[in-house]
Amino acid sequence: MAGSTYGTVFRMTTWGESHGKALGVVVDGCPAGLPLEEADIQRYLDRRKPGASSIATQRKEADAVEILSGVFEGRTTGAPISLMVRNTSQISKDYSEIASYYRPGHADYTFDEKYGFRDYRGGGRSSGRETVGRVAAGAIACKALEQLGVTVCAYTRSIGPIEAALERFDRQAILETPTAMPDREAAAAAMEYLEKSRQELDSVGGCMECIVEGLPAGIGDPVFEKLDGNLARAVMSIGAVKAVEIGDGQKVAMRRGSENNDAFHMEDGKVVKTTNHAGGILGGISDGDTVVVRAYVKPTPSIYLEQQTVNQSGEDIYVRIKGRHDPIIVPRAVVVMECMTAVTVLDAMLLNMSARMESVADFYR
Amino acid sequence: MAGSTYGTVFRMTTWGESHGKALGVVVDGCPAGLPLEEADIQRYLDRRKPGASSIATQRKEADAVEILSGVFEGRTTGAPISLMVRNTSQISKDYSEIASYYRPGHADYTFDEKYGFRDYRGGGRSSGRETVGRVAAGAIACKALEQLGVTVCAYTRSIGPIEAALERFDRQAILETPTAMPDREAAAAAMEYLEKSRQELDSVGGCMECIVEGLPAGIGDPVFEKLDGNLARAVMSIGAVKAVEIGDGQKVAMRRGSENNDAFHMEDGKVVKTTNHAGGILGGISDGDTVVVRAYVKPTPSIYLEQQTVNQSGEDIYVRIKGRHDPIIVPRAVVVMECMTAVTVLDAMLLNMSARMESVADFYR
Amino acid sequence: MAGSTYGTVFRMTTWGESHGKALGVVVDGCPAGLPLEEADIQRYLDRRKPGASSIATQRKEADAVEILSGVFEGRTTGAPISLMVRNTSQISKDYSEIASYYRPGHADYTFDEKYGFRDYRGGGRSSGRETVGRVAAGAIACKALEQLGVTVCAYTRSIGPIEAALERFDRQAILETPTAMPDREAAAAAMEYLEKSRQELDSVGGCMECIVEGLPAGIGDPVFEKLDGNLARAVMSIGAVKAVEIGDGQKVAMRRGSENNDAFHMEDGKVVKTTNHAGGILGGISDGDTVVVRAYVKPTPSIYLEQQTVNQSGEDIYVRIKGRHDPIIVPRAVVVMECMTAVTVLDAMLLNMSARMESVADFYR
Amino acid sequence: MAGSTYGTVFRMTTWGESHGKALGVVVDGCPAGLPLEEADIQRYLDRRKPGASSIATQRKEADAVEILSGVFEGRTTGAPISLMVRNTSQISKDYSEIASYYRPGHADYTFDEKYGFRDYRGGGRSSGRETVGRVAAGAIACKALEQLGVTVCAYTRSIGPIEAALERFDRQAILETPTAMPDREAAAAAMEYLEKSRQELDSVGGCMECIVEGLPAGIGDPVFEKLDGNLARAVMSIGAVKAVEIGDGQKVAMRRGSENNDAFHMEDGKVVKTTNHAGGILGGISDGDTVVVRAYVKPTPSIYLEQQTVNQSGEDIYVRIKGRHDPIIVPRAVVVMECMTAVTVLDAMLLNMSARMESVADFYR
Repeated sequence: MAGSTYGTVFRMTTWGESHGKALGVVVDGCPAGLPLEEADIQRYLDRRKPGASSIATQRKEADAVEILSGVFEGRTTGAPISLMVRNTSQISKDYSEIASYYRPGHADYTFDEKYGFRDYRGGGRSSGRETVGRVAAGAIACKALEQLGVTVCAYTRSIGPIEAALERFDRQAILETPTAMPDREAAAAAMEYLEKSRQELDSVGGCMECIVEGLPAGIGDPVFEKLDGNLARAVMSIGAVKAVEIGDGQKVAMRRGSENNDAFHMEDGKVVKTTNHAGGILGGISDGDTVVVRAYVKPTPSIYLEQQTVNQSGEDIYVRIKGRHDPIIVPRAVVVMECMTAVTVLDAMLLNMSARMESVADFYR
Repeated sequence: MAGSTYGTVFRMTTWGESHGKALGVVVDGCPAGLPLEEADIQRYLDRRKPGASSIATQRKEADAVEILSGVFEGRTTGAPISLMVRNTSQISKDYSEIASYYRPGHADYTFDEKYGFRDYRGGGRSSGRETVGRVAAGAIACKALEQLGVTVCAYTRSIGPIEAALERFDRQAILETPTAMPDREAAAAAMEYLEKSRQELDSVGGCMECIVEGLPAGIGDPVFEKLDGNLARAVMSIGAVKAVEIGDGQKVAMRRGSENNDAFHMEDGKVVKTTNHAGGILGGISDGDTVVVRAYVKPTPSIYLEQQTVNQSGEDIYVRIKGRHDPIIVPRAVVVMECMTAVTVLDAMLLNMSARMESVADFYR
Repeated sequence: MAGSTYGTVFRMTTWGESHGKALGVVVDGCPAGLPLEEADIQRYLDRRKPGASSIATQRKEADAVEILSGVFEGRTTGAPISLMVRNTSQISKDYSEIASYYRPGHADYTFDEKYGFRDYRGGGRSSGRETVGRVAAGAIACKALEQLGVTVCAYTRSIGPIEAALERFDRQAILETPTAMPDREAAAAAMEYLEKSRQELDSVGGCMECIVEGLPAGIGDPVFEKLDGNLARAVMSIGAVKAVEIGDGQKVAMRRGSENNDAFHMEDGKVVKTTNHAGGILGGISDGDTVVVRAYVKPTPSIYLEQQTVNQSGEDIYVRIKGRHDPIIVPRAVVVMECMTAVTVLDAMLLNMSARMESVADFYR
Repeated sequence: MAGSTYGTVFRMTTWGESHGKALGVVVDGCPAGLPLEEADIQRYLDRRKPGASSIATQRKEADAVEILSGVFEGRTTGAPISLMVRNTSQISKDYSEIASYYRPGHADYTFDEKYGFRDYRGGGRSSGRETVGRVAAGAIACKALEQLGVTVCAYTRSIGPIEAALERFDRQAILETPTAMPDREAAAAAMEYLEKSRQELDSVGGCMECIVEGLPAGIGDPVFEKLDGNLARAVMSIGAVKAVEIGDGQKVAMRRGSENNDAFHMEDGKVVKTTNHAGGILGGISDGDTVVVRAYVKPTPSIYLEQQTVNQSGEDIYVRIKGRHDPIIVPRAVVVMECMTAVTVLDAMLLNMSARMESVADFYR
């Protein structure tokens, strides 16, 4: 099982390699009647595109999306929505060098061990370009969630030691700074830090955060389909993510129960939590509060500095990885996290519709 | 979808509530011919049982497992294996108080919002007793993995601020100390810390770690069925876990690529990693090194200290939760983490058998 | 994959062998709030029980069902419902003979080839007793469907050459005659026919039919999850079924389009079909008319007449199968067909709730 | 859930509408290392293409397939294989008439009821063109099965009352006659019959058959994932199929056990069945004999004769359906049946690899 399908009711199947002809996704199970046009998706794809700034790869891809099916007269029909982005800039360069050894921190070795050989051009299926399909599908999920009053917003929380201050939260800055930070001051500092790392031929790691607002209580299921469990998988499945947290995450391990429990109280006739250490999820089910997910991302494994590795002939060698590579993964992964979260949450909302017999009976009355 | 099934080929379906008649699991897809008897499973269930020590609930359950199907003449037959544990000590006490309000940090509120009402006796399906089924299934997975040369071992890494020192790693201590720490010194310090917290009517959090040894390279799939993604979901689906890490986890966010990449080199004619920051997984696929997973667990939400909450009549109230509750969740959750990891790894191994056309052809030759 | 789980949202996992300790099923994803008690399930189990009549095996099983989880204060909670039936009458007889050869028409040989050995006691997992779990789960589905205004009714359509006349359709006769025919005249004739066959130490085949009334239009999905496709699988998965039809079935192959198309016309302001050759399904989706499914069942393979076969030592031998066996499978399989149909239809109805964006938005408003 | 994904390990996701931009499929889980080029797939697509003969629609589609991903240097890589066929001849004609009413025997009404509206151009997703994706995926499955020594062959068994005589079985005739019959005499008679029906502005039904040779014993699973159950679903999911049979199918209902049981005997040291009434499957698992599946297909619902129906304004009307339509569906559906069978069988073979613990241990040794 290659594992390229995600979701139960709202389900995406992605395909494509870094240097293949195209990349894409089939979204199946999207409710019928959702207004959708290519621009809705393009907006999201543009956020993961290599930009012009020094912190993103120089590869120039239009990444123009084409809707091939599932939309008629501007609305989804309930049929699978096939989306495709042609690869246009893959340079027919010589890959023989990269093909001949295992890049440290990459999946070259593990692909060879699993499949017996690999498409070595630009990382093949293990390239970050694989996320084109996720983002295209996520754009649709975000559009559907909007109609349900739910918004999903991801951003860079930190780059190396530079952390965004949430007191200065500025949603526009996420889209406008090359760092995808919601804090322009931190963004400026991070740019300096990145420039320094780039000059040192190295790369850096960081943290991204995603918040879901407007999600009603009751979404997610107990036991194996917990909303937090599924979000953890969704986010950890993004290349380079090495840790996932919900709410206060790791910090809870050092707390007392009396500090960590969120009290309930009444507000305007509704039950609300006084604090949100839980990150909006209790027992795997949303509690009506903001859902908070955090992901820690390793530094770009491709660096210009010399590294030790092994070649196909089984010899110890030293290499410097040439080509275009981002000094940090986080800013371009932010939209991927937003999209994986959106798909996960929407799928859980669709599945939740049959949780009560009474609602089912109402629906069919 | 209540979400009580986990796994694709090796698949468990758990059932049961804290104070229902029984709890259990159906394991489907276990390869035929595995020697199995009740004692194999009992050994694991005994590890999650409330012990005699002061850090575990006083509830006395024999938790004696019964194999109801799927085993014939001491071996699995390929048919579903049904395992059951009768609840024997659920005291028919008065639950009217606990039924009347939402316990902070528990799933009482979210269950009510989702399902319209809840089985409030001892937390019902959201109780830690739900894990009886997971552990019983995991015991079978562990037995199968043994035959494949793979061992899975989980333990308490830290309790509040007290951390186990891996230099003193003592596998026997995991089973013998009430803390499930692999370090007897730390275990003793932790016991003191827990006793203090107990006297203060409070609870504490902690961290657990699980290592998988002997796993061949090539296990797990790219994109959505990454081994790390699936482990993250598996572990985050354990109640009270709020963060999951693979390998060096969060720390990678502060590192440079040159620090974080694991170099490859040749050793005895084999490709090996010089370090293991990656935690044994590259691109979602095992790399032959030890797999390392870590989970951060919140303090037990049931505490004797007074807390604010809301009752069914929508009034702000203050409560002290009576009854038996552990001052920490971690030591009893360790075996659950081990079992969830085992099931995830075994399932991935079974699925991996068809990764190469050549192997499939060999199999059917 | 042993394949003991069925359904996407309303999902059953069955377990148990003919001569194991017990048989059962876990039903997951049943909407919360459905009134349910053991008697609701027992009623269905009693229909598949070996009766007192000469056409059913002499095995006496109480088949008393126990609800082990998922029901609280008389209603389903949304948690998995575990149902168990203890085997009580499995005689500890000598199975060494039956273990030593492959019964013609049975799965003895194929189980050995697949798994390397088999639980030979009474057919193990391939016994008709496996359907205890299906029927217990189906009883719950039927109860839920009732609340949605949908009724499912299966009956014996023919036994050997004796066919029930639908003009004489008498629903009570299905429950009261040992043949499960809805026509008492045909039932009487069939009993004579069966008696004759029994005296000749042989068995006979037959046909069963299932109708679903009250199903709204729009249930089922295009392409792979067609309602008819899923019903075909559901019904063909019942042991001994060798053909499945929807509506006029095989007959359509000999028709002209002008004969076979069902015209539409208006009736009381609603679109209705003038005829129902289609059996209530068009393009895989229900059309609001009665759904009609038919299954053709082979004669009981266990017969007292001498048959040729092969033993474990690879020798050609001749055998007469001793023990208790029904001269016909159909009458006891009727309730299994009803249950498989009910689970399939209910699951499709639950999944259909998210077909339109507008309904989803209404639900969450 | 739109239900466009099929298979567990070898899994296809199809997409596309009759008059959309393109149609296609994503095949995930194909073992790596299978030699594959576009010509392998084109060969199968050409078989379902509208031909030049009078019995197929005049629509001229090149149906040229493009491999967009998953193949590198002539072999599958283990990554999803995306295949696309552009629609080129969809005439931008006026669909307002067909949009305004429900065609009898079509899914127009049920799509509207399910989704609220429909893509009415040429039937949209419910068109026979939907099968382009199935056939493209099936071509890959057939190629993989070849390497496993398994061949799948479907053909037209009958057209109206004209039946192919299997004594004259001529595999080449399937590919060379416009009827896809394996008997040139019957094919000629059928052509005359079809011509007569065409002149009468009507259409006819028929039967198709598929045989699987070389399949080892042991494939398929007991209970819900029976090989015959899954084949029934696979074949019934093809538009217009109304009945599915395995082996002797319906006929078994009129037989005695002594007639219907297949005796076992030894042949060249192997266990073989003396007859094959069972159609190669016992208890849901292949028995090593030829698997035989039969499907009965309704006449093309689009006919030139006048029919009664209802329009969007809820008025009873009479219509004659214009445009291009085949007088019979069967000959072009034959390759679809072959492909659905191939995908089902291959998937079952891949899943079967973990049936025995011993094999799993051998694999990882």
